[in-house]
Amino acid sequence: MLNAITAKIQACFPAPEVHAHCDGPCGVYDPAAARITAEAVLSMTKKIVDLQPAGQDAASMVAYNNTLSRYIAIKEEQAQKTKEDILILWTDYFKPVHLEKYPDLHDIFWKAAKLCSACKVEVSVEHATELMAAVEQIHGIFWATKDRDVQWVKAS
Amino acid sequence: MLNAITAKIQACFPAPEVHAHCDGPCGVYDPAAARITAEAVLSMTKKIVDLQPAGQDAASMVAYNNTLSRYIAIKEEQAQKTKEDILILWTDYFKPVHLEKYPDLHDIFWKAAKLCSACKVEVSVEHATELMAAVEQIHGIFWATKDRDVQWVKAS
Amino acid sequence: MLNAITAKIQACFPAPEVHAHCDGPCGVYDPAAARITAEAVLSMTKKIVDLQPAGQDAASMVAYNNTLSRYIAIKEEQAQKTKEDILILWTDYFKPVHLEKYPDLHDIFWKAAKLCSACKVEVSVEHATELMAAVEQIHGIFWATKDRDVQWVKAS
Amino acid sequence: MLNAITAKIQACFPAPEVHAHCDGPCGVYDPAAARITAEAVLSMTKKIVDLQPAGQDAASMVAYNNTLSRYIAIKEEQAQKTKEDILILWTDYFKPVHLEKYPDLHDIFWKAAKLCSACKVEVSVEHATELMAAVEQIHGIFWATKDRDVQWVKAS
Amino acid sequence: MLNAITAKIQACFPAPEVHAHCDGPCGVYDPAAARITAEAVLSMTKKIVDLQPAGQDAASMVAYNNTLSRYIAIKEEQAQKTKEDILILWTDYFKPVHLEKYPDLHDIFWKAAKLCSACKVEVSVEHATELMAAVEQIHGIFWATKDRDVQWVKAS
Amino acid sequence: MLNAITAKIQACFPAPEVHAHCDGPCGVYDPAAARITAEAVLSMTKKIVDLQPAGQDAASMVAYNNTLSRYIAIKEEQAQKTKEDILILWTDYFKPVHLEKYPDLHDIFWKAAKLCSACKVEVSVEHATELMAAVEQIHGIFWATKDRDVQWVKAS
Repeated sequence: MLNAITAKIQACFPAPEVHAHCDGPCGVYDPAAARITAEAVLSMTKKIVDLQPAGQDAASMVAYNNTLSRYIAIKEEQAQKTKEDILILWTDYFKPVHLEKYPDLHDIFWKAAKLCSACKVEVSVEHATELMAAVEQIHGIFWATKDRDVQWVKAS
Repeated sequence: MLNAITAKIQACFPAPEVHAHCDGPCGVYDPAAARITAEAVLSMTKKIVDLQPAGQDAASMVAYNNTLSRYIAIKEEQAQKTKEDILILWTDYFKPVHLEKYPDLHDIFWKAAKLCSACKVEVSVEHATELMAAVEQIHGIFWATKDRDVQWVKAS
Repeated sequence: MLNAITAKIQACFPAPEVHAHCDGPCGVYDPAAARITAEAVLSMTKKIVDLQPAGQDAASMVAYNNTLSRYIAIKEEQAQKTKEDILILWTDYFKPVHLEKYPDLHDIFWKAAKLCSACKVEVSVEHATELMAAVEQIHGIFWATKDRDVQWVKAS
Repeated sequence: MLNAITAKIQACFPAPEVHAHCDGPCGVYDPAAARITAEAVLSMTKKIVDLQPAGQDAASMVAYNNTLSRYIAIKEEQAQKTKEDILILWTDYFKPVHLEKYPDLHDIFWKAAKLCSACKVEVSVEHATELMAAVEQIHGIFWATKDRDVQWVKAS
Repeated sequence: MLNAITAKIQACFPAPEVHAHCDGPCGVYDPAAARITAEAVLSMTKKIVDLQPAGQDAASMVAYNNTLSRYIAIKEEQAQKTKEDILILWTDYFKPVHLEKYPDLHDIFWKAAKLCSACKVEVSVEHATELMAAVEQIHGIFWATKDRDVQWVKAS
Repeated sequence: MLNAITAKIQACFPAPEVHAHCDGPCGVYDPAAARITAEAVLSMTKKIVDLQPAGQDAASMVAYNNTLSRYIAIKEEQAQKTKEDILILWTDYFKPVHLEKYPDLHDIFWKAAKLCSACKVEVSVEHATELMAAVEQIHGIFWATKDRDVQWVKAS
């Protein structure tokens, strides 16, 4: 069954064309984009958990609510960007030939995308940490398909 | 192997929570959103193929270039929206329990997403028509998982 | 007076050209887009009203604030999309000829757009329900102008 | 009939609340936003009409196509922003009490919004000039409702 | 050193081309865009400080949270737009020749941009007021470079 | 003079707070984001220069125009993202203390931002290459301020 679908998709995209992160195809894909935003998701999640109002007066509570509200919105935005960058790799970079070599490819990306959603819906350091691991796994697979040994360097 | 991953994902999302098209979860998913934009992709593709300048004078050529440029940009935008709406269903609505029932689920969505990209990269009535068919297939699966019989009604 | 304006507008847009939801004109208009987002507005409004923290501990309160903040943001986004989709119909699909047949057209759309804003500003199940009714009314008028009998099918 | 609808809308929005350009309500409305973008639409339209390739060589043609493509895209974007800014005034600032004083209000905004679409679809200096006039008319009505005498100052 | 860089930049942009707010270049720059959004930032900041729940019942608290959450999001959005509009002037309108006349130009814009960020991070009427002053200063410099005497007119 | 302004800005931002790429502050800044998009700008610029229609028939010309139009739009989008990512570093990450150490800081960022605009306005491999060099320079300064030795790794 899988072979039939693979064949169908290959028929659909016969040329070994290189599509890119911008759908160009510009040929420039880099999991670092998803890594940066996933780091932000983890950072914001930790900051939300740790956030405390400086006092119980009106000004402190307003400042607390402003910061909390912004952190949640930024976590949302960064998780969404992570999801988009991951899915661009899945839909545009990875080809049937990669699927043969990595038969779990679909599930790896499905799980990673679902982790992005979980990081929005929850305030979970555990899931945000798992998201970082999922992005690192994708980083590994991606560069392996290019026969390049690119280090996993975090900004934070 | 697949079972192991499925189990892992289920462990990650134990509750039978309902996520929705807006990542809310608001519980409102509807493949009609992807259907409307896919119709626009097909419509714009046909119009691009048929477009002719009204004459060879400067005004006609400027009008032609304006229209052609806009059609291409709209095709791009609508194909991108179709891709996003399809992927929201895949990443947020569909759960491991659905994957068991539809083992081709990942490949169906992968192919549909790749068709969206193909409709951007090319001016292909054939691929735009296949995209409509892919969205109709997703419409069928989606409503079947909800035990509802919803008609496939096109706007155009 | 109205006739004078109608004439002026007709002079401005003499050709019976079909503009579409994407401003293309791709010819693909469908009030279903506004219906889906209006359903989300109503769903989120109800969920906001019903939302309770699971407990008074820090983790429960953080989870509550995360969810509340996201629901409000999603309600905002979906109400904005509803407004945009409604206004595209009003500004691009409907023509002077329709205004003659539906002399209340402007007020119907004005009221619907104002309901979208009200659903942002307030947390009102009543106004969100009225918005659904307004979108259904627009659905009815729209398909009547196309001499098509399209069912009002909700996703939720 | 009109009175009945007006009454219904008034019932819907009983308080004399001030909604604003950002849907806040922040109370800050200013037709200058629509004026700036409408100026850009007119400017880009003129530049598109006047644009000529510097030569027939490949580099000149590529430069010409790059510029033409960008001008069309910017015209589109600025016309869309003009439309959005105009419609915010119509849907959020103007109230039934203003409609009584300006019974043509709906048609003025409808025509202005349709001009925005026309400026996208066409490369028409005439329609872009009419759009500027429409925005100036709205500027006049707007400040009159605030009993302020604000000058119409253009940037270009 | 500064002269060397200035020379390098001038070499990079030899022609006295007029770039504009839309990067077109459409030639239409106007600090009024930044002024409108900065007014909104100040307005929302004041409203956030003044906001009180109407009561302690569930409905009042939900309404309060909805309004607070929206005000913070709008303040964020408007501060971001102010920042973008200010930076377009700095990166696209101002040229080395202006820098010679206004040697503090870079610091003026840096400070103004940092004030936009401060208005997001904090709920500070003081910083929002300083932002308005910074935009007025930019308004003054901008019109001076065009030898035009344009009044500073606020909408609120 | 510079010292006075620096002092004023320092007074404005007394705390050594860490703002981040997402304006959070999430503390996650990484010039890799600007590097990825700058690579795409260079890639698209080269592809635009090299693009040729496959033939003179209608289908070939339509395919050529579709590709050319998309490449120009992607170049625009990626140059805009590069500009935004560069400016976030300048406005949010860099502080007066860095300016003391790098007195050319403002001019470096001004030039880099102007290069982004030049890469939109023109189809220039030379300027796109200079943009890559400017981003690499910023990469060097950025990591030096963090006392980290991070390699400059390109994706393409």
